[in-house]
Amino acid sequence: MLTNVEHIGIAVRDIAASNALFAKLLNSQPYKAETVEAEGVTTSFFRVNQTKIELLEATDAASPIAKFLEKKGEGIHHIAFEVDDIEAEMSRLAAEGFTLLSEKPKAGADNKLVCFLHPKGTNGVLIELCQERTVLPK
Amino acid sequence: MLTNVEHIGIAVRDIAASNALFAKLLNSQPYKAETVEAEGVTTSFFRVNQTKIELLEATDAASPIAKFLEKKGEGIHHIAFEVDDIEAEMSRLAAEGFTLLSEKPKAGADNKLVCFLHPKGTNGVLIELCQERTVLPK
Repeated sequence: MLTNVEHIGIAVRDIAASNALFAKLLNSQPYKAETVEAEGVTTSFFRVNQTKIELLEATDAASPIAKFLEKKGEGIHHIAFEVDDIEAEMSRLAAEGFTLLSEKPKAGADNKLVCFLHPKGTNGVLIELCQERTVLPK
Repeated sequence: MLTNVEHIGIAVRDIAASNALFAKLLNSQPYKAETVEAEGVTTSFFRVNQTKIELLEATDAASPIAKFLEKKGEGIHHIAFEVDDIEAEMSRLAAEGFTLLSEKPKAGADNKLVCFLHPKGTNGVLIELCQERTVLPK
């Protein structure tokens, strides 16, 4: 079950400059910064009620964020929905015909298990499923 | 003050097909459909906790959504933040250097007063401010 819009990911070229910009926009400070080496991103998080705004900067040219910036420029990169049981939701969505970008949940930023859906099957929207990580990923 | 991610707007070519797709994705049905003639859009709304997913289809070729689809294809179009006082927030953001796309709040879908910020000043993200409409727009 999708229970919440957990965060919205925004691809930016210069996370320090964007932290300052979004601090003005949201009138609040980012509460966390985190680098996810496996994904080639540095992230920072703002909180607005029950949803986070996640800024993403590429750490190297092979990162998916670097490719997104090259192709589309800065802007909204993905929507992440919180789920109560990520494996059950992955099975349900695969059975509905959606294409999962990984067979198993992966370790993401912010202590989450995550799985992305291919945007070709979701009107061009990159969708992330995420679940708070209480056990090590399988 | 920005108090919530009120909705995420997604531009689609065929809202009937996308309603069916998002019903599968979100495992719920759209609870409302509305055409906003002034903006040249037909919309439908899904609810996920405190945030809505708004699908947007253009009603004519001059609509901003038609132009977005032509330029970028289907995908995430904007993020809307709920504000407690839209005119105060517009003044605050203008003073911070953001460019407002209207001088006054306008009537939007879902009984809201709305104002957009120019995406050139927000890392390519089209931001909407919205406030529940309790009085007629000025």
